Amino acid sequence: MQNSSTSLVILGATGDLARRKLLPALFQLVCKGMLPANFRIVGMARSQYSDDRFREMMWQDVQELSGLAARKKDWNAFARHLHYVRGDLQDLEAFVGLGARLEVLETETPPAHRLFYLSVAPALFPAAVENLGHSGLAVEDTGWRRVVIEKPFGHDLNSAEQLDRLVHQVFKEEQVYRIDHYLGKETVQNLMVFRFANAIFEPLWNRNYVDNVQISATEEVSVRDRAGYYDQSGVIRDMVQNHLLQLLTLVAMEPPSAMDADSLRNNKVEALRAIRRWDMAQAAQNSVLGQYGGYLDEAGVAPDSRTATYAALRLYIDNWRWQGVPFYLRTGKSMKKKVTEIAIPFRQPPHLMFAGETGETLNSNVLSLRLQPDEGVHLKFEVKAPGQGMGTRSEDLEFHYGTAFKDQIIPEAYERLLQDALEGDTSLFIRNDHILEAWRIVEPLIKESEGVAAGLVQPYDAGSWGPEASKGLLSRQGHMWQENTGSH
Amino acid sequence: MQNSSTSLVILGATGDLARRKLLPALFQLVCKGMLPANFRIVGMARSQYSDDRFREMMWQDVQELSGLAARKKDWNAFARHLHYVRGDLQDLEAFVGLGARLEVLETETPPAHRLFYLSVAPALFPAAVENLGHSGLAVEDTGWRRVVIEKPFGHDLNSAEQLDRLVHQVFKEEQVYRIDHYLGKETVQNLMVFRFANAIFEPLWNRNYVDNVQISATEEVSVRDRAGYYDQSGVIRDMVQNHLLQLLTLVAMEPPSAMDADSLRNNKVEALRAIRRWDMAQAAQNSVLGQYGGYLDEAGVAPDSRTATYAALRLYIDNWRWQGVPFYLRTGKSMKKKVTEIAIPFRQPPHLMFAGETGETLNSNVLSLRLQPDEGVHLKFEVKAPGQGMGTRSEDLEFHYGTAFKDQIIPEAYERLLQDALEGDTSLFIRNDHILEAWRIVEPLIKESEGVAAGLVQPYDAGSWGPEASKGLLSRQGHMWQENTGSH
Repeated sequence: MQNSSTSLVILGATGDLARRKLLPALFQLVCKGMLPANFRIVGMARSQYSDDRFREMMWQDVQELSGLAARKKDWNAFARHLHYVRGDLQDLEAFVGLGARLEVLETETPPAHRLFYLSVAPALFPAAVENLGHSGLAVEDTGWRRVVIEKPFGHDLNSAEQLDRLVHQVFKEEQVYRIDHYLGKETVQNLMVFRFANAIFEPLWNRNYVDNVQISATEEVSVRDRAGYYDQSGVIRDMVQNHLLQLLTLVAMEPPSAMDADSLRNNKVEALRAIRRWDMAQAAQNSVLGQYGGYLDEAGVAPDSRTATYAALRLYIDNWRWQGVPFYLRTGKSMKKKVTEIAIPFRQPPHLMFAGETGETLNSNVLSLRLQPDEGVHLKFEVKAPGQGMGTRSEDLEFHYGTAFKDQIIPEAYERLLQDALEGDTSLFIRNDHILEAWRIVEPLIKESEGVAAGLVQPYDAGSWGPEASKGLLSRQGHMWQENTGSH
Repeated sequence: MQNSSTSLVILGATGDLARRKLLPALFQLVCKGMLPANFRIVGMARSQYSDDRFREMMWQDVQELSGLAARKKDWNAFARHLHYVRGDLQDLEAFVGLGARLEVLETETPPAHRLFYLSVAPALFPAAVENLGHSGLAVEDTGWRRVVIEKPFGHDLNSAEQLDRLVHQVFKEEQVYRIDHYLGKETVQNLMVFRFANAIFEPLWNRNYVDNVQISATEEVSVRDRAGYYDQSGVIRDMVQNHLLQLLTLVAMEPPSAMDADSLRNNKVEALRAIRRWDMAQAAQNSVLGQYGGYLDEAGVAPDSRTATYAALRLYIDNWRWQGVPFYLRTGKSMKKKVTEIAIPFRQPPHLMFAGETGETLNSNVLSLRLQPDEGVHLKFEVKAPGQGMGTRSEDLEFHYGTAFKDQIIPEAYERLLQDALEGDTSLFIRNDHILEAWRIVEPLIKESEGVAAGLVQPYDAGSWGPEASKGLLSRQGHMWQENTGSH
């Protein structure tokens, strides 16, 4: 970024995301010296604030909401980069005003690049994008123009396609940075390092050795204050279409030839494209939906709501690597334990040498990649049980991030992603074809669960592992949820 | 062992091995109720003791030498099984007397089996075996007759063949139990469990994935009070021909079809037979011998001794599985650290996706099976280094026996092996063809190092990792000793 300057515009600068995540992340990046000197942040929202008042508010938020031990001295250095413009996102004039303000701020700097961060409610997306277009702010004249879009990327396949068309009327695909903060997490990126920087796992990473794949993202908390939003979206939109399918692509994709955006994203989309498609009957057979006891009493939930707060899916990936290997996905609110984990039970040894001794079949090896809490890797393996005979016992080979990196501060996902966006690295952002494929995968399930005949959603006790039927989804194939892996 | 009784005869009952290892092991087996009720132990040695005096002496030893927290009450229950016969092993009459005593002890018992344990100096082996033959004690009339033989099994190939002929004049091979207490260790048996009870390691266990194999058994201690014996044998006989080649067979052998003695021992011998044979020049090229500084000053060592106290070898196994994979073996006295470990560096990933980021080549995965101290398994793998970019860092997946089995008492090797011998399980004992193959492998090295031209033995500092040249043995192939693996 020699001989250039950069303006980062946050549309919706006084919203929750901006206050809790974006400003703290930008503050951290400046503290670490990871942003260019010739750099400014311009916040825009509907209320009227002076620059100074906006800076004060953000300083309060950083202290109260971010969890950072921020020093005022560092903040003052940062706040110099911070500006505010009043404006309604539905008002074209506001964008014209924003443009004029940018011109002023960018006077006497080298030609300026501009990153627009749409930190706004889904309902305001179309207006904001259109106004960026109509105001001419998206035109790449003096430097690049990029836009960061937050999920949800549509409400279903149809609305996602509409949104995509809208965005592409204003921006070329390479200008668009669709963010899923999951992809900025260290542990998620480590999935790629685990698979492609280690020579010993990739040879086992296929249908010859893997028995099944289990991707879990369970939460202990209920929908809490998000009930109003949640009741409209449900678990498939909230977690499956985005986070769980992201994790699936990282587990299932072919090794990219390089860590560049095209190679990585082509291979991820190819994994999604290989997922066997359902008709509505198949969607019902290959899934279990649930609603926790007490959900209907949450403030903001319709009294007769059939919204699912739990989902378990069985997917198949029809390619050479994964043919016949079930990928089980599950996620839910108000469950027994908070855990995000990829568990891979391998096939049994082909020949049970020691079976005669124990009179039992052997246990399978299980690799668990734990994303949270207690991030780490567990590899369940068999060791000799102490004593006479050759009886075996299952133990874990273990690695814990917390132990290995205890003196290091792991950067927040938004720090990583904001910097990547400023540097033009789209690797960890989601391409439009990925979004649409993911909607195509879950579409039959959404239709089935929201259709006239919807009787699918089964009750489960808050604090449980979900509906009883979720066990049956696996046991029909002789499998079991790896509930207790790595739990200590 | 229904309707039968068993007599275990210890020849050399007042020797070190009997007092430190055998009696304590038998005591433990009785305490655990793992020996049959109708069972007696008869010790024989040259001095004259009454049964009671012998029991008293053994009780003292168990308290002082065994490290057991023995209770007198348990000992008294055990001591009833204990008897003593005076006799010189070179005197046929002594064996006739032993036979008569056994007849008396076995009166009013069901037909008795007899196990003879030759806990004697190598020089007395031939006489003891011959006298067992001439006295008729080896004849299987009323029950089975077995003999346990301790190493050394010969001093070289020639003497081993002689000893083998001698033993087979009296005993059939299936009556002979050659003991290497290494094979009775839990961690050594666990090598088999690790390889054959886990489905995920065996697919990697070959030339396609393994870069090289390193088997280390280093000691901090000097030859100490064993100098007299040691100066006559040297490191090849003391460690390489037996322990290290045992470990090598367990790592290299094909999977046995069952955990039975024939299947296991056939496959172990096959691995030895596949080791590429050396002529004397090749022996010199593929080995480094050393002698620690100060060895010549040890009491009992010849002032001009050229005995090696350190050896490093590079062996190749000419079969489909291991073609081209170097097996590095090393062992020595007065070295930097006591560690017995099998380290397996795997090949590098075939494609360095992340290399561009770090500007370096990636590290290889290394599996370390630690036999002592701090028994366990370490698997070095790459994780994402925290922070921007996709830099990687090597960490360990770890398993420690001491943590997993901290409430369990691991049985001593001799307990396991004595019980196996009494039960007729020869799996963990060494067959004659294995002994002879192992001698054939080291024979050129012994000849080279002890020949007229012997200038091979290089000095190394006590407390070091051996002669400098031991590094060159590996670096010529681009390899490195995995000195620090699992060391924390």
